[in-house]
Amino acid sequence: MTGTKSSSGNFLEDFSVGQVLDHATPRTVTAGDVALYTALYGSRFALQSSEIFAQACGLHQAPLDDWLVFHIVFGKTVPDISLNAVANLGYAEGRFGVPVYAGDTLRAVSEVIGIKENSNGKTGVVYVRARGLNQNSQEVLSYVRWVMVRKHDAASVITGHLPPDLESHVSADSIHANAVPNFSNFDVTLSGEPHRWGDYAVGEQIDHMDGMTVEEAEHQLATRLYQNTARVHFNQFAEAQGRFGKRLIYGGHVISLARALSFNGLANAVKVVALNGGRHVAPLFAGDTVFAWSEVLDKAEIAGRDDAGLLRLRMIATKDLPCTTFPLPDEADGVILDLDMWAAVPR
Amino acid sequence: MTGTKSSSGNFLEDFSVGQVLDHATPRTVTAGDVALYTALYGSRFALQSSEIFAQACGLHQAPLDDWLVFHIVFGKTVPDISLNAVANLGYAEGRFGVPVYAGDTLRAVSEVIGIKENSNGKTGVVYVRARGLNQNSQEVLSYVRWVMVRKHDAASVITGHLPPDLESHVSADSIHANAVPNFSNFDVTLSGEPHRWGDYAVGEQIDHMDGMTVEEAEHQLATRLYQNTARVHFNQFAEAQGRFGKRLIYGGHVISLARALSFNGLANAVKVVALNGGRHVAPLFAGDTVFAWSEVLDKAEIAGRDDAGLLRLRMIATKDLPCTTFPLPDEADGVILDLDMWAAVPR
Amino acid sequence: MTGTKSSSGNFLEDFSVGQVLDHATPRTVTAGDVALYTALYGSRFALQSSEIFAQACGLHQAPLDDWLVFHIVFGKTVPDISLNAVANLGYAEGRFGVPVYAGDTLRAVSEVIGIKENSNGKTGVVYVRARGLNQNSQEVLSYVRWVMVRKHDAASVITGHLPPDLESHVSADSIHANAVPNFSNFDVTLSGEPHRWGDYAVGEQIDHMDGMTVEEAEHQLATRLYQNTARVHFNQFAEAQGRFGKRLIYGGHVISLARALSFNGLANAVKVVALNGGRHVAPLFAGDTVFAWSEVLDKAEIAGRDDAGLLRLRMIATKDLPCTTFPLPDEADGVILDLDMWAAVPR
Repeated sequence: MTGTKSSSGNFLEDFSVGQVLDHATPRTVTAGDVALYTALYGSRFALQSSEIFAQACGLHQAPLDDWLVFHIVFGKTVPDISLNAVANLGYAEGRFGVPVYAGDTLRAVSEVIGIKENSNGKTGVVYVRARGLNQNSQEVLSYVRWVMVRKHDAASVITGHLPPDLESHVSADSIHANAVPNFSNFDVTLSGEPHRWGDYAVGEQIDHMDGMTVEEAEHQLATRLYQNTARVHFNQFAEAQGRFGKRLIYGGHVISLARALSFNGLANAVKVVALNGGRHVAPLFAGDTVFAWSEVLDKAEIAGRDDAGLLRLRMIATKDLPCTTFPLPDEADGVILDLDMWAAVPR
Repeated sequence: MTGTKSSSGNFLEDFSVGQVLDHATPRTVTAGDVALYTALYGSRFALQSSEIFAQACGLHQAPLDDWLVFHIVFGKTVPDISLNAVANLGYAEGRFGVPVYAGDTLRAVSEVIGIKENSNGKTGVVYVRARGLNQNSQEVLSYVRWVMVRKHDAASVITGHLPPDLESHVSADSIHANAVPNFSNFDVTLSGEPHRWGDYAVGEQIDHMDGMTVEEAEHQLATRLYQNTARVHFNQFAEAQGRFGKRLIYGGHVISLARALSFNGLANAVKVVALNGGRHVAPLFAGDTVFAWSEVLDKAEIAGRDDAGLLRLRMIATKDLPCTTFPLPDEADGVILDLDMWAAVPR
Repeated sequence: MTGTKSSSGNFLEDFSVGQVLDHATPRTVTAGDVALYTALYGSRFALQSSEIFAQACGLHQAPLDDWLVFHIVFGKTVPDISLNAVANLGYAEGRFGVPVYAGDTLRAVSEVIGIKENSNGKTGVVYVRARGLNQNSQEVLSYVRWVMVRKHDAASVITGHLPPDLESHVSADSIHANAVPNFSNFDVTLSGEPHRWGDYAVGEQIDHMDGMTVEEAEHQLATRLYQNTARVHFNQFAEAQGRFGKRLIYGGHVISLARALSFNGLANAVKVVALNGGRHVAPLFAGDTVFAWSEVLDKAEIAGRDDAGLLRLRMIATKDLPCTTFPLPDEADGVILDLDMWAAVPR
């Protein structure tokens, strides 16, 4: 007797605009997650590394890395949203909320805000707004993502509509105030670099210099840590017959690698506060070496704050391509990530 | 001057029926172990993942995954029992006791309950009952295992006898009452699936669908985390000359991989309470992809409890063989594990 | 517009004798770091594994493994000292101070104590004394290291002088008293071996027997965990064109592997108290299998203590070379590490 207890995930037909999905498996994050994150990326930002540094910035404890929070929330959405995804197309309106500390319990809720069938009749695009919440139902993160999903049956009729216009980027004055710690006592010796907000200029480009080669075991450990079950990352037996002949690395792994590399030149951009947009330009595979560079797209003050300012940063990651000449997605082969975010920096 | 301080492990001659072995290296388990376990297997069972979910089930904290407890207790027995093992032959009478929480300190004690020389005169089988204890000497696990061990000298005369008859399986009414949390407030939205005890039928088969490819670094990290020192898992220099020409993956790694995959269809079978028996049908090597399926062998109520019931589950793992046709050990190549256990499920 | 925010590290010209470097990124160490360390090396020393064992030795909690402390302090010095290092040449005068516990926050400070240009005009040797401090500014470790560093410009004139004479080894009576726990209640059953201080003889050699094969993912995870950014460990794209054509494994990874293997024969040498000296004789690469053996160089009592004594141990590690014949650096190919240390052992 064969049961029907297991799930092969949602297809385009299974989504409807306005649908709310309470994602499974709440997760208590711990110092263990933090240590693994350090081992996976080698991140050195002082705020997340030291309880004492964090307390000097007015926080109870060292907060979890912003992208670790992102990956855990994102991972929860995968079984419901993107198990049958063909591609992760874009992000918008990402805002980090209250800090996440070891001991907090995170869960995720998504709302479907748009659906559009593709002209090929085989796939479509689903837009969701995902929210990560802590044990007190405080928002730790929200973002919009759109993803290409397979139809179960090409003959299905899909009803839906595009989402309301998305912001081109998060406006600086809408940044959560509680997402920016107090940098009045920020110690630039311990943080690793002397550069403050005033030292960065719009248009400035920073080569983060170092390269990091990725192994299969590493991205699998990371993606499982995030309880992200997307099949393309784990199953070589199936992927050997797939598009690339090999396992595809979770795009978020690239974000965290680039972010860790960006310490060299952005050591004081310790807190990511918004994700304006982003695109996984090309896939990454085990054995590739990741490099990164950043450009300062904009600067903004924070109302009523003279301790901290905001930098809007474009972070580009490449594979097997050092970034000494600041390669751009449409100009150079080898670019794999093009991310746009706001980060808080001491003044 | 050459000392004799290091040990090459026990051989068949070194065991005697009734012998008690207090195993070395007590271990305080932590949130770090839990995070690594998540990263190694991607387990998503809500009870072990969320403090709040666990507290709603009447526990102080989220308990450690049952198989993590098993591996740590098992690992402690290896230096004394199975360093010179040819094969791990079987398990019986496994019972999980009080929950294990981060902060508990575990140790292990074994009693030799049977010894039998093989007719080839070179090996024999040792039967041990191993017990895992916490810092309050409460039993967290006990099980019988039998293992084929080399003789040091083929000429040795071995005295011993078989163990008393082992139970064919753990009877449902002998399950430790305190091994089953209170599922009165079990939230099937957060747990990931709606299926309750009453929804499962004896004979039902569940394909867990996903596959997980294993890397050398992963099984080595896991097996060291369990402080399991069995040589075949770690030493490629020696194994290149061995039976398989490569490192053999710890059988318990397969159990945990299959268990994590089984979330898809058994998300609410959150608590393993007994190990009825099991067999490592064939070895697993790095590069292989593990799949799994389960069959409901039996169902049982728990006396005085209307919040929870028991499912007796046969869990089969395969390598490079998807389980859509429910392959069995004696019918299909590729089966690597055949495990029989009881798990508690909300009613 | 190209910024100059990122750093390519210090060259020989950037150092001066007497210079003090406050290294970046203080680090709160946690149970997560401890679990990862166990998973990376499989260490089984009881003092670091069990809170209860540690408390029976008069400590508040289980202390972090001494070499984990070493690696974290060392890692902090890398961006300032050895990012452009050609080779790590030696260690001296290493002393472990107060125990480090999960929850402590470590930082590192170095003083340049010697500079000497090499006759080739392209490189020189920098001598630094590094100190690791906890959140109360107590010293957890100090050691001298000398490292060959590239000049930025061969034409530069380097002024400097050799350091004051370094001790040939740490004298036993200068060992930090608080670095040796109280072994009055040391349980040799739980610790794994019966051998006490009195059972070891000067000149005794111990083959630690087992071998451990190293994977790229493992040494990268380890080295990132230590926030050690030395480029040769991570960037296959660059190293493919380098001296060896592949990534070089952090020398400290070898120390920890050998130390974990040395449990077999030195299970009761639970606390390393001094690093007398050491040399990375040859590089290790992924795929190699590490073996180890030790020789007792000396023994010493501890003034006023009848619970513990000191063993001076020479620990040799090899690659793809079992240590049954106790290979020495100048006699056998395959030796990769020659380390000299003091360890405390129960009497």
